[in-house]
Amino acid sequence: MAKRIITISREFGSGGRLIGEEVAKKLGVAYYDKDVIGQIAEQSGLSPEYIQEKAELSPKKGLFAYAFSGRDITGKSVEDMVYEAQRSVIMEIAEKESCVIIGRNADFILKDRNDVINVFIHGNMPEKVQRICKLYNVTEADAVKMINDTDKRRRTNYNFYTEQKWGMAGNYTLSLNSSVLGYDMCQKIIMDCARI
Amino acid sequence: MAKRIITISREFGSGGRLIGEEVAKKLGVAYYDKDVIGQIAEQSGLSPEYIQEKAELSPKKGLFAYAFSGRDITGKSVEDMVYEAQRSVIMEIAEKESCVIIGRNADFILKDRNDVINVFIHGNMPEKVQRICKLYNVTEADAVKMINDTDKRRRTNYNFYTEQKWGMAGNYTLSLNSSVLGYDMCQKIIMDCARI
Repeated sequence: MAKRIITISREFGSGGRLIGEEVAKKLGVAYYDKDVIGQIAEQSGLSPEYIQEKAELSPKKGLFAYAFSGRDITGKSVEDMVYEAQRSVIMEIAEKESCVIIGRNADFILKDRNDVINVFIHGNMPEKVQRICKLYNVTEADAVKMINDTDKRRRTNYNFYTEQKWGMAGNYTLSLNSSVLGYDMCQKIIMDCARI
Repeated sequence: MAKRIITISREFGSGGRLIGEEVAKKLGVAYYDKDVIGQIAEQSGLSPEYIQEKAELSPKKGLFAYAFSGRDITGKSVEDMVYEAQRSVIMEIAEKESCVIIGRNADFILKDRNDVINVFIHGNMPEKVQRICKLYNVTEADAVKMINDTDKRRRTNYNFYTEQKWGMAGNYTLSLNSSVLGYDMCQKIIMDCARI
């Protein structure tokens, strides 16, 4: 397989993360999700030196204190700094190797590369609710609230940083309804496309 | 293959119609596009009797005269009547046989069936422009204008009649970028999904 970066955006409860993890395993490529990217960014981009350089704060004050101080002299919020650090990590990862990247607006961050396949996984409410109830051991009402809240945050963050609309088919190479197609078929389609 | 209705919505110039036609041929199922559905609606739904019944107009006045009279006493425009007639045709077709239906908001019209796969085909501007230049023998500037105008009409019509947003991944079972994936891969994915 030629070098391929597969980004996966997804609705909460659609199984997108799991599908991405399985695709990475089956293709034998690296897998990066929020936690891994966050850790790398923390180790490199969000070091005290980075904070000092970007925000002209004493390294001793750290991120927490900074969060209460609002914005730095350039108008950047903590969220902006975290976003920029993660953005750098994603660009380095994509330069280095074939991989699957979950979330983090990676589709937009990597839009100028031509070795990227952007996937959006969505699903039907009943199936998503059922999945969240099982995964988090919550009631149906709680699951609905979790789905709506999480997707609202993802949509807001994506629309803010990309000036595109989260969930518009045009942003992605392929979009799949995992409730109708099933997780196995979603994996198969993504792998077929990665092998083009 | 179990009975399957495949609806194809598409951006102008993305090759969606052609992809749908090929899928219908390869699966050996019926193919319905704007022209065919329009003809059937004309023969049945838009007969003088239909017009008289719906709009309480003299059949002798016909559609053209009606177009200038604005709306009937129920507030229906000619467009609404044509839409309703085509909607009935699409529902009858879907009841009858496996088929591919291009456009006509068929994804929304058939939303209560569980034997439907809704596909959205989109593409990148340079590839769409190239295709339209060749197909219609027009300049690049004219092709861009044709693409923007046609998609604007489709979007407006879809958003009006469905109260959903045209091109949102969530409306469709799968959405494919034909410029990146190629027409053959799009056909393959749709056929794989039809065989679930």
